[in-house]
Amino acid sequence: MQTFEQYLQDHLPQAESFHPVYEKALGEMLLAGGKRFRPMLLLRVVEAYEPLLVESALAPALALECFHTYSLIHDDLPAMDDSPLRRGNPTLHTRYDEATAILAGDALNTHAFLLLARAAFREDIRIKLVEILAYNGGTEGMVLGQAMDLYFENTPLEIAQVRQLHVRKTAMLIAASLQMGAVIVGLEKEIQQALYDFGIKLGLLFQIQDDIIDETQSSEEAGKVTGNDGDKNSFITLLGLEESMVQADALAVELEEQFHAFDVRLQGALDPLIQKYLHRHR
Amino acid sequence: MQTFEQYLQDHLPQAESFHPVYEKALGEMLLAGGKRFRPMLLLRVVEAYEPLLVESALAPALALECFHTYSLIHDDLPAMDDSPLRRGNPTLHTRYDEATAILAGDALNTHAFLLLARAAFREDIRIKLVEILAYNGGTEGMVLGQAMDLYFENTPLEIAQVRQLHVRKTAMLIAASLQMGAVIVGLEKEIQQALYDFGIKLGLLFQIQDDIIDETQSSEEAGKVTGNDGDKNSFITLLGLEESMVQADALAVELEEQFHAFDVRLQGALDPLIQKYLHRHR
Repeated sequence: MQTFEQYLQDHLPQAESFHPVYEKALGEMLLAGGKRFRPMLLLRVVEAYEPLLVESALAPALALECFHTYSLIHDDLPAMDDSPLRRGNPTLHTRYDEATAILAGDALNTHAFLLLARAAFREDIRIKLVEILAYNGGTEGMVLGQAMDLYFENTPLEIAQVRQLHVRKTAMLIAASLQMGAVIVGLEKEIQQALYDFGIKLGLLFQIQDDIIDETQSSEEAGKVTGNDGDKNSFITLLGLEESMVQADALAVELEEQFHAFDVRLQGALDPLIQKYLHRHR
Repeated sequence: MQTFEQYLQDHLPQAESFHPVYEKALGEMLLAGGKRFRPMLLLRVVEAYEPLLVESALAPALALECFHTYSLIHDDLPAMDDSPLRRGNPTLHTRYDEATAILAGDALNTHAFLLLARAAFREDIRIKLVEILAYNGGTEGMVLGQAMDLYFENTPLEIAQVRQLHVRKTAMLIAASLQMGAVIVGLEKEIQQALYDFGIKLGLLFQIQDDIIDETQSSEEAGKVTGNDGDKNSFITLLGLEESMVQADALAVELEEQFHAFDVRLQGALDPLIQKYLHRHR
């Protein structure tokens, strides 16, 4: 099997024109690394049931990475999180300018749907993939999550609202990645739903873990408990470190139970991707 | 037939949440008016051949308007054209803030594909609609056109490059609107292509006409020929008023010839929408 990394390098968005940097800007953040977690979730589900379809599933996997990358580029903008760096590299608006970063994000958002539309699957599968990505990544999904995060940056929310925020901002796209894999191999609606629910919980666990790691790492560095004073809606601020740990543990246990109820093929394929994350807050 | 305007009001993007302005911001620029030219092109083509399908075609028509509106919201941003007003109303980033405007644009971009994915047509038609919108509105289409426009704002281009810029920035989405109508009613590839080509030329004519009208209106207002000094790549700056008029006339004649080669049903349906524009520069 061609690796995803190789496929990505060979299939960067193309746009030949007399614009001197546009095409390069489109590919730059895609190449800048990351865990490729969303594409991997999709590919692993496909591999579990239909190894011969993995090759064709690289295009939808790339669509997920394009979509995720668009969201990172826009989140980093001065009007949003205003981040000069992403994974140690200058962000796109720092390297070029804001307009280029906005447009590169816009292009990657739309490009994800072009990749899905042209994927080598039956039309009914392709249109279902489009629907899943557009629903979970759009108006009621990822974009709403980011809007909530920014709007309430300095306003403490209820814990249930913070959960809702992270479900939308992060978990829905992770859940969508698993569901898209399930659609490609034609898994039953119920299993699709189980994978989707698993993805939602997994995304939520990641966020709690990130908050815990932020807290404990900065504590070590500072040599004291610093608190997460920059973020009024972190799980640490709202629940405290101890209760956050308890909730992360509880979610990890739930996820393990759900995981072990999956078909052994699915367990085998997802295990290397999932298991190492479940207890990383410990 | 339900009017498009009524349909739009009844089908604004929904996103119930505890965010106090997000849902409103999503709908605001959609409701702010405009000619609804792209949806109308699609609907007229459908009406010409399959009046009974017009009702179902309202969703793809709305997808086009969502997509067009996302592009206006982003074009108006401070990092782009920095426009405080759009059609006499405050732009979204003026009314709320930049982050809200970026996110509303992002949401409408993705929402267009959700509407297409859920439209009441066969899967093969829906996936073709997704492909046409994603291709013409994306990486190699509208987004590239806007990137060119901004990048070369203060650098004079060759006239062929300016044409290419406007084909991408404006004409491809207009052409896509006609082609999407053709796909919905199942017109042959050749007629689809003829409609697409017609749309490209029509989009280009609009741009030349806009430049001419800008020039002649500002002249009247100022009582003298002011020149189009703010825009180094207008057709007026590059060709002069007289030659721009000659080229607009020539394009209008070409378009009329192509128009009269269309099926009479198509001519009848498109006539009220097209004819009044062909000579508006005179």
